[in-house]
Parts: sequence; C-alpha cells; structure tokens
Amino acid sequence: MPDSSPGIANRIAAIQPFHVMALLARARKLEAEGRDIVHMEIGEPDFDTPAPIVQAGIEALQSGKHHYTPAKGLMELRQAISGYYQSRYGASVDPERILITPGSSGALQLLMAVLINPGQQVLMADPGYPCNRNFVRLVEGEAVSIAVDATTGYQINVGHLQQHWSAQSKAALVASPANPTGTLIPRADMQAMADFVSGQRGHLLVDEIYHGLTYGTKEETALAISDDVFVINSFSKFFGMTGWRLGWLVAPQAYVDALDKVAQNIFLSAPTPAQYAALAAFTPETMTILDQRRQIFQQRRDYLLPALKKLGFEIPVTPQGAFYLYANCSGITEDSYAFCLQLLEDAGVAVTPGKDFGDNRPQQHVRFAYTTSVQQLEKGVERLQQFLAN
Amino acid sequence: MPDSSPGIANRIAAIQPFHVMALLARARKLEAEGRDIVHMEIGEPDFDTPAPIVQAGIEALQSGKHHYTPAKGLMELRQAISGYYQSRYGASVDPERILITPGSSGALQLLMAVLINPGQQVLMADPGYPCNRNFVRLVEGEAVSIAVDATTGYQINVGHLQQHWSAQSKAALVASPANPTGTLIPRADMQAMADFVSGQRGHLLVDEIYHGLTYGTKEETALAISDDVFVINSFSKFFGMTGWRLGWLVAPQAYVDALDKVAQNIFLSAPTPAQYAALAAFTPETMTILDQRRQIFQQRRDYLLPALKKLGFEIPVTPQGAFYLYANCSGITEDSYAFCLQLLEDAGVAVTPGKDFGDNRPQQHVRFAYTTSVQQLEKGVERLQQFLAN
Repeated sequence: MPDSSPGIANRIAAIQPFHVMALLARARKLEAEGRDIVHMEIGEPDFDTPAPIVQAGIEALQSGKHHYTPAKGLMELRQAISGYYQSRYGASVDPERILITPGSSGALQLLMAVLINPGQQVLMADPGYPCNRNFVRLVEGEAVSIAVDATTGYQINVGHLQQHWSAQSKAALVASPANPTGTLIPRADMQAMADFVSGQRGHLLVDEIYHGLTYGTKEETALAISDDVFVINSFSKFFGMTGWRLGWLVAPQAYVDALDKVAQNIFLSAPTPAQYAALAAFTPETMTILDQRRQIFQQRRDYLLPALKKLGFEIPVTPQGAFYLYANCSGITEDSYAFCLQLLEDAGVAVTPGKDFGDNRPQQHVRFAYTTSVQQLEKGVERLQQFLAN
Repeated sequence: MPDSSPGIANRIAAIQPFHVMALLARARKLEAEGRDIVHMEIGEPDFDTPAPIVQAGIEALQSGKHHYTPAKGLMELRQAISGYYQSRYGASVDPERILITPGSSGALQLLMAVLINPGQQVLMADPGYPCNRNFVRLVEGEAVSIAVDATTGYQINVGHLQQHWSAQSKAALVASPANPTGTLIPRADMQAMADFVSGQRGHLLVDEIYHGLTYGTKEETALAISDDVFVINSFSKFFGMTGWRLGWLVAPQAYVDALDKVAQNIFLSAPTPAQYAALAAFTPETMTILDQRRQIFQQRRDYLLPALKKLGFEIPVTPQGAFYLYANCSGITEDSYAFCLQLLEDAGVAVTPGKDFGDNRPQQHVRFAYTTSVQQLEKGVERLQQFLAN
C-alpha cells in the first residue's frame, strides 16, 4: 500500500487512480491469453496523427529542430492558432495571449499555479474529467464538485454557480464538449456564467479540448464571448496528436507574464518537434482529413446511441460532441463497476465505470467511447446483448 | 505588473523570473540590429541531437508511434535505462523503479507532489539551479537555501544537514555535477548524507542530469550507494535531447505507485516520439558520438578556465562536470548584474549574472557556459580583456 509508506504527502491519498487502468491492464492480459476484446473504454482517437502533421514533424527532426523553444512556445505556432480562432470562430485573439503547453495538462497546471491559493475553491461539474480536481488539489486548493444531471444537459449553469459560490470560491471550470457526457454549453449559459464569475472577481476556465468534434452543430469558443475567460485547448483529440503532448492556453493579457514565469520554471518549453509538426495542423490538407474523421465519429455515434438505448441503457441527452456516451445503467445493474468487470471477463467488452468521473451516482453509470470502428462497435453491442440476455 | 493583477496566487510573487531571459532578449535584439554577440550564457548544449537518436525518432513517426504510452513510460526504455545503470555504473536498478518523465522538470514535479506537505522543508545548496526552489513552492513547501562556498566545493555535506535539518525538514536536494558550479559530490559525502537523512526518516533527492559530462574523473550514481535515494536524470544534457522534453526518475519501490498515480493525472505520459527516439541513446554508435562531445567540452573547459583566471575572475575549485564555470568577479565588480548588462552592450558578450542562482553573494558572481566553440570562447575572452582594460 504505497500511500501509507513513510512520508507520502497527504494530498496523494485524495487522488484517485484511474479505475479504468486496472480494467485496461486486465483486458491486455486477456488479449495476451488469446481473447478478443472490444475496446470501448479508451479516451484516445483510434486514428493516427494526420499524415501532413507527421511529415512536418519528420522534416523538423531532419532540419535540427530539437533545441528548446521559448517557454510560451514558437511565435509562428501561436500566430497559427490565432489565425484559426479568426477563421473558424470569427474571434480575434492576440497571439501574445496564447501559450503553447505540454498537453492541455500543462495548461491546467499553469492555471492552478497562477490562480489558486491554498484553500481556495474551483467549482466544476460531477461527472467530469477526473484529473481536474487533482490539478486543484496539487496546489492545495479545493475542488467543489457540483452534481449535474440530464435536466441541465449534464452541465453546470449560472444557477449552480449562484448556489455554490462562496467567499472561498475563485474559479469555475467548465468543459464544452464535456468528458464523459459529450454535451455542449449553450452560448447564453456560457455568457451568463462569465458575467456572474466576473461579478464575483473570479475566473471562468473553459476546457475546449474536444472542440472540432461536434455533430449536427458547430461549437462556439468562449473567447468570442469574453476576453476575460481562460481557455484550455489541445492538439490531442480533434487534431489526433495525443502522444506528442501538445496543447495551449489562452489567457487575459494581464496574466501572461505570470503564466510565462511558471512555465519557465516547471516545463522550460513544450516539445519542440511537436510544435513544428503542429504548424501543419491548420492547413487545408489536414483540415480535409480532420473533417472526414469528424464524419466518421458522427456515424459511430449515430449507430451506437440507439443501439445502446435498445439494450436498456438510458441516454436522455443526445451528446453533440467528443466521442463518448455516458449511459445510465440503473435499469441493468446497481453496481456499474462490478458490471464492467464482469462484462470484460464474460463478454470481452471493455467500458469505463462511472466511478472514474466522480461521486455523483457513479454506480449507476458507465461511459462508452466510440474510438473504434463501427464494425467493432457492432460486435461489442452484439456481445452486450448476449451478456444481458444471460 | 501582472503579479499584482486581481487574483494572482501568492506563490507567484515568490517565483523569480530568469534574469538571463531579459539579457538573452536584449542579445537577440542587438543581433537583429547587426551586432555580433558571443553567447556564454546558454545552459543548453550547442550540439544537435545525435543522428542515431534523430533517426530513431523519424522512424517512430513513420511507423505511427504517436499515441499515448503508459504513464510510467515505455517498458522497453525503462529496461534500457536499467541496463545503462548496470553497464556504466555497475548498479542494479529494477526497471519497475524507473519512471519516464517529460524532462527532469516532470520528475521534480512528481517528487514534490508525492513527498512534500505544505510547510515542509527541502534543503538545498545556494547557489543552485533556480527552478528547484520553485518546484517546492508550487506545492506550498518551503525551500531552505544553504549558503555554500569553495571550502566545501560549493556543495552541501552532512555537516550542513546536521546544522539546518529541523522538525519541518523532509528532504535534501543535491546535484552532482551541479549547476552553476560544475562540482561533484564525493562518494563518502553522498553516503554520509544518505545515512543522515535516512536516520531522520527524510529523503535524499539527487539530481544527476549532468551525468556523463565529467572531465578527468568518472561520476558515480547515488543509486550505487542506496536504494532509498530518489534520482532525477534527463536526456537533455549529455544525450543532447533538450527540445524533446524527456527525463526520468528512479524511486524506491514503495513510492512507485503513488508517483504513477500523480503522473497519470498531471502528464498522462511523456512525449511518445521522444521515448522511441531515446531507445537509440544507449547504442554504441550514439555513445561514440557522446564521448567525442565530452572530449570537446573538456577542451573548452581547459581553455576557458585559465583564461578567465588570467583576467581576474576567481574560480577556486576546478569544476569537474557540466558545462559551467561559476566565477567570483568581486575583484572586477561589486555588481555582477550591472556588469553583465554593460558587458553585453559594450563588448557583445553574454554571461549569466549570479542572481539567477540564489541569494548567496550573487552580486559577486557570474556564470560562464562553455556551450559554444573554442573559437567563440577565444573571441569572448578577447572582448572581455578589452572591456576590462577600458
């Protein structure tokens, strides 16, 4: 039990491991034994990085681009991102306000370091991305989980903020599209939250890392609403660059120097080959590839959503983004974790238990990721059906 | 003044920016205006990444190696590092104890998160690597700077620990070879510190990121002394992979799960192409290149050290590692920062002021980096001589 070893800091006990990791390890073991497993647990696109980005990375390596960059990142890339905000969203974002980070994880670390004093609170939705509360805990802040359900599209809104904001509250962290629910925040709600938080002299932090992956609607950036919000984004999901570890942060100008100072100290810089590779992320050639992938993700969602409902999973809000379906399984089981373990062992289907996303009725929920082909999803659904019939 | 903006966390005011950054920016501006600048301020090898490593990185990209790896890193790379400890140092280190991190910065972050409660102290030498105290501050710990001088080779020893260890002390962080002084810790001193700290139920953290870059002596790893020490290392300096952002951490087995849990949350994984590239770092072909570079660094040191002494800089301990000379300039100036600024403006020579390394008589010290050719160093010395003659 490492957490009780002499001298492990108190914060560690508060940090949950990812339960899906144990499940994934078990799945890999079964596969090594010859079992066929359908993976619907993985939060990573199954597509490789688009070829033009890979090619730009190779050319960067060939031409000696492997020294440090400035801590804020290559100006050329910051300008490219600024251009993308203009062309995709019609939003003017000064490249000086954009910092390149090692994944969106790096952006979240910078934000908490610069904004949160010990004891100060960050409000967020439960269910939500499990690491978020731990970034807060790492700097001795307090994550306040707000239980959300289908009635608000699994998102917090200004009503939640009014109810939960306290003298210790410093920021609200929202995600659109969200993990694990795939839902978006309507513009009016985002605006109302930005106004409320601003009135409290607090901060609205907006996770837009699933931007680009939206179906039947086009997402808006919170930067089009206000220059005072902080926006976190990533090259991992839509751009298919997970292993490259590259993200970015957009901050109000007054915070850039402080963020830069922390970045100089805790990262030095984001990976250089990845930064040069990402310069090819915004080209028409890459965008064509990414648009095709978006259509494929939509086809998968459009297959999986009704298929799961037919099996008895409740998905009351149709997710319009990301690549997840967060399903209420209380009609099937009252212990989603045991269900996931059993489903893997008996039927060879891996899904993520609700307990990886918080404390809000986790035993009644599971997350399906459609990061695999429709053929695999069909096989998974068939196995699920047989499993449930037994 | 960003640090006084509404809502910037208190820790930020305690974090110093790198003063050399302002100097570097000025140097770049002068260069843009056509001035020729000799750079002796840069803490990054001037060599490109060795060709076999670059080639392995290219092949990784070509073969689709750009998804996440496990948070602890590729097992193949952890095994290669374990093998390197055996072959270079005769030390047995279980690969299970090795975690691959985004630079040694990532390793330092993990360590502080897992070991340091708010208010607990980490003892370290002053002068020292400036970021170290900020990693401690980030988790609300307290860095205790211990002033060192030539009489102990600019290193802390067990006498310092006995004097400064308090009920709040949790760890001592040492570096061998050290930045900015380039000095090593003798084995007996390392052993005595490991024993003392262990007796206090504390931890010895050993920065070995300049390992491999030693001259006229061969460094030893603290892992050959004890399985209880934590060792931080990096592919940046000796292996010439700065921009790839790759390092590693060796921990006692009992801490590995806690470190893994934090890594899962704050990094997800180190950059994947860099990990595959680094598999080529330990091959005989790469080692031949690195040995040649080591000899070149030694030639530079052997030129620069007497040349600076002749000009009136005092360097009482001959540095046996890294690529720095930390010089007492009190015979020349009593304000090293003003001296550095003037030297850059008037003579076009960039060096790093002592104030980037702590509060221990910084105004009487400057750091010279020999990360440039002997020809450039000669030009720098010539310009220094003329500058001092005026």
